[in-house]
Amino acid sequence: MRLFDYYRSSASFRVRIGLNMKGIDVERSPVHLLKDGGQQFAGSFTALNPQQLVPVLEDGDLRLIQSLAILEYLDETQPEPPFLPQGAAARARVRALAQVIACDTHPLNNLRILKYLKDEMGQDDEARNAWYRYWVAKGLSALEALVGGHPETGRFCHGDAPTLADIALVPQIFNAKRFDCPLDDYPATMEIFENCMAQPAFDQAQPANQPDAE
Amino acid sequence: MRLFDYYRSSASFRVRIGLNMKGIDVERSPVHLLKDGGQQFAGSFTALNPQQLVPVLEDGDLRLIQSLAILEYLDETQPEPPFLPQGAAARARVRALAQVIACDTHPLNNLRILKYLKDEMGQDDEARNAWYRYWVAKGLSALEALVGGHPETGRFCHGDAPTLADIALVPQIFNAKRFDCPLDDYPATMEIFENCMAQPAFDQAQPANQPDAE
Repeated sequence: MRLFDYYRSSASFRVRIGLNMKGIDVERSPVHLLKDGGQQFAGSFTALNPQQLVPVLEDGDLRLIQSLAILEYLDETQPEPPFLPQGAAARARVRALAQVIACDTHPLNNLRILKYLKDEMGQDDEARNAWYRYWVAKGLSALEALVGGHPETGRFCHGDAPTLADIALVPQIFNAKRFDCPLDDYPATMEIFENCMAQPAFDQAQPANQPDAE
Repeated sequence: MRLFDYYRSSASFRVRIGLNMKGIDVERSPVHLLKDGGQQFAGSFTALNPQQLVPVLEDGDLRLIQSLAILEYLDETQPEPPFLPQGAAARARVRALAQVIACDTHPLNNLRILKYLKDEMGQDDEARNAWYRYWVAKGLSALEALVGGHPETGRFCHGDAPTLADIALVPQIFNAKRFDCPLDDYPATMEIFENCMAQPAFDQAQPANQPDAE
């Protein structure tokens, strides 16, 4: 398999965690989202993914896009250790927690959004940082309400083994820290984050540990 | 089961299509996103979903949030007709198509985003409509490239039966039409849309056919 990613991309970080958890070694092709006017816009990359976003995972002739779809694919093709718990209700909870981040939080603060706010709407750094922190706070306060004190929450978002929810959560916390978002209001979430980061699969996937890190 | 939804909410529309496809009758509790300062912000609804978003599906004691997670739950608990094809690669394709809409297109144009652009960034209707159309065009042009001419595309996004991808697509096209987004550049996508709307499960789920439609 070959992973096209960018060290600081949150969706790429998710897939790296998943690959590490499954113990899958991949070739790496870094795509620099800022250099050369954005290497994701090059024709060669657009041919791989018309969305012009990372990550892309190649598995033989297959080209997989969208981090959550890639993670479900990895889970279906190599079931151990599972990314989802047993039982439809538990699986729905884990998927929903992942989607609170992956649908309703992270896409609002992506590079292309911040660029639009600056270039097309003339928003300065302060206004863009306020936007960023606002949506992080919306997402994390919802997540805190969903995991804090919930009977199914354990050392991780669901039980005592990491799931898809934790894989989505951790890169979002890295982003939040990078933009100095206050995190004191999310004690249950941050305890889970620390438990994740104690796992080599998560730690080795973090941006600073990637070959293209700057 | 009981569905808390709003007739014009795109995520609610997805779940209504799914319920119709499975032939599941539900009780309905409309949540008006504009009345009373937004009924989703009421304490009683926040207790159901701390994200303060629709839809919420109640199944006995279970409260399910996030439309894609709800749809996967329905598919796991009542497998016929399936929302996902057989085979990990095909399933990854369908999930990815759904996520192009549900992660990278729709959340950028949600009511709460348009409100922020107006209230916090002072953006007028024209600027907000331009934003809306820009992200719709980004999403639909990617989708068109992914379905147009692809060997697995049939009458629907994947093959000749509707899947999760079609369920995500149709409400997005309704939104695009409501905001007068040009759709001529997406012939493969629009043909799939028409094929979907010929199905009673899709047609009966559309906003105009809901009891709370205005």
